[in-house]
Amino acid sequence: MSQWYLENFAPILMEIEDSMQTFAHRRPQVAPLFWEIVDYHFQWSGETKRAGGKKLRPLLALLVARAIRGDYHHAMPAAVALEMVHNFTLIHDDIMDNSPERRHRQTVWSKWNISQAINAGDGIYTLAMMSLLDLLPDCSPQALADAYQTLLSACLATVEGQVLDIGFETRSDVTPDEYIQMIAHKSAALISCSAKLGARLSTEQASVIQGYADFGWNIGIAFQIWDDYLGIWGQESETGKSATSDIEGKKKSYPALLAFQDAQTHDAIDKLYRKEVLSQSDIAQVLEILQSINAQDRTQALMQDYYHKALASLDSTNISGPNQQILRDLAAFFIERAF
Amino acid sequence: MSQWYLENFAPILMEIEDSMQTFAHRRPQVAPLFWEIVDYHFQWSGETKRAGGKKLRPLLALLVARAIRGDYHHAMPAAVALEMVHNFTLIHDDIMDNSPERRHRQTVWSKWNISQAINAGDGIYTLAMMSLLDLLPDCSPQALADAYQTLLSACLATVEGQVLDIGFETRSDVTPDEYIQMIAHKSAALISCSAKLGARLSTEQASVIQGYADFGWNIGIAFQIWDDYLGIWGQESETGKSATSDIEGKKKSYPALLAFQDAQTHDAIDKLYRKEVLSQSDIAQVLEILQSINAQDRTQALMQDYYHKALASLDSTNISGPNQQILRDLAAFFIERAF
Repeated sequence: MSQWYLENFAPILMEIEDSMQTFAHRRPQVAPLFWEIVDYHFQWSGETKRAGGKKLRPLLALLVARAIRGDYHHAMPAAVALEMVHNFTLIHDDIMDNSPERRHRQTVWSKWNISQAINAGDGIYTLAMMSLLDLLPDCSPQALADAYQTLLSACLATVEGQVLDIGFETRSDVTPDEYIQMIAHKSAALISCSAKLGARLSTEQASVIQGYADFGWNIGIAFQIWDDYLGIWGQESETGKSATSDIEGKKKSYPALLAFQDAQTHDAIDKLYRKEVLSQSDIAQVLEILQSINAQDRTQALMQDYYHKALASLDSTNISGPNQQILRDLAAFFIERAF
Repeated sequence: MSQWYLENFAPILMEIEDSMQTFAHRRPQVAPLFWEIVDYHFQWSGETKRAGGKKLRPLLALLVARAIRGDYHHAMPAAVALEMVHNFTLIHDDIMDNSPERRHRQTVWSKWNISQAINAGDGIYTLAMMSLLDLLPDCSPQALADAYQTLLSACLATVEGQVLDIGFETRSDVTPDEYIQMIAHKSAALISCSAKLGARLSTEQASVIQGYADFGWNIGIAFQIWDDYLGIWGQESETGKSATSDIEGKKKSYPALLAFQDAQTHDAIDKLYRKEVLSQSDIAQVLEILQSINAQDRTQALMQDYYHKALASLDSTNISGPNQQILRDLAAFFIERAF
């Protein structure tokens, strides 16, 4: 994690981590193996304690709560729920993607087996939903019902986005628009939900809640497009992955789909992406194709479009002050730094 | 499904079915494939409509609600949630058990693939949790929070029971007591939850709620032991499976575990259960071993013990009348008919 992120958020991140652990360990334990997997996945045991994840979703919920109310502790159970939902999807996605490693550690299915990884995901999802109950008695019962409605809608969107994503693997005619719809559901919905929950638990004002929800939705899409951009044109020193890694992996990310959609370039990129392995010369050809349709600028422009929509949504809340400014800084940190 | 069951419950079962379908189809649909899987799994499309499942859990919730309050419609969203939770576990369990068929139809993972079956289960679990929100505004906000607490605790118990069950597959030293603990969590917890939810949504009286919860817990364990009994000593005409089917499958059900635990018979049954396939003479030997330790009577006695505890729990509620009597009849229908 970067210096700026840690300098600004280390204490909050530590609080989130402690709250998650305290919450989970409060349960009576029936199946020791389940709790062993939970401890392993969240790095609450072993040598690499507390190294896991940037915790963007719970952080966003708490920062929004603080921007509105000056404090965020009332929203902590929702923050715990969000991080647990995110992790349940990671554990299940790792099975579907057949990924043996995450953050340089074995994934749950690869360390145990697919069955126990399905169970672990199901159980962590359940813990997430239980965490919301800790919002009582600080929040009103109606706010609790709204929190369930908000979080569950985001979960269903995430699942439907994942269904689309898996379905895309066997399709060769996915359009860039369909792709954006997919990532909006698979990723942006839970980020939007994070901002929305932080807001809903801190105010009754519908326009403010909607403003933060829109902020999360747009910034979530922007993050994902930016990820696609970096996967092709990123600097290895910044991303930790080789530049052009998404081309090597023949990933049908947004820029590639632009080339698939274009009648001038469709056949050329399709032919290259059907190869088992791409040589350096193949990769160079793909980059040329992308350049011929101006894919780099178009990807960047779309990302900036969502980024500016996100900032406008933030302005629409009419909330100001340093705690609101940090939300702009956070968005910029994830995106603007490269411009 | 048997005549008695349909004669008594066909209209309620139809209402549950309609409520589930109406609830699910009210959602905007993002990923058509997800909804196609939902429709297929619940048999809401195709030629075999409305044939699926006995819907014991939602039925139990509604019957308890009616016994207390004379009507059950206020508990319908909880009934829908219970049946959906049950089905989410079936879809995930079918992956873990590598089962290609359920009720003579392809399972979701076998018709599509494991990835989409994981997604379908996750999505149906989410729908289950969403259904509870429809309890408002008829129930109090506190009752809603209690409903979430009750259902989520049962879901975690179910997952932990499943973790134990999968873990037992590779262990040779599982005791009968551990086995009962496993089935109590894997199966009885959700049945107990069904009765408890029906009660909680119909009364504030803690002793009544607890009485029905205990009824469900005990009857759920009795059902499962009875299932184990029938798997070895059942009549093929009654169960639809060959008598001794659990021996053929070398299933380590309760009676078999009694023989594994007994120092006199451990080695003999262990040796037989290590064979790839059991011959008719092997099966006869297993039956002899079980007879030598009185396993049939002991299994029946344990089941009756839980059954009588269940009836005593029902009495402890001090609720009476024909709507309470039908709960006794339902319990007897599932168990007593064979005595």
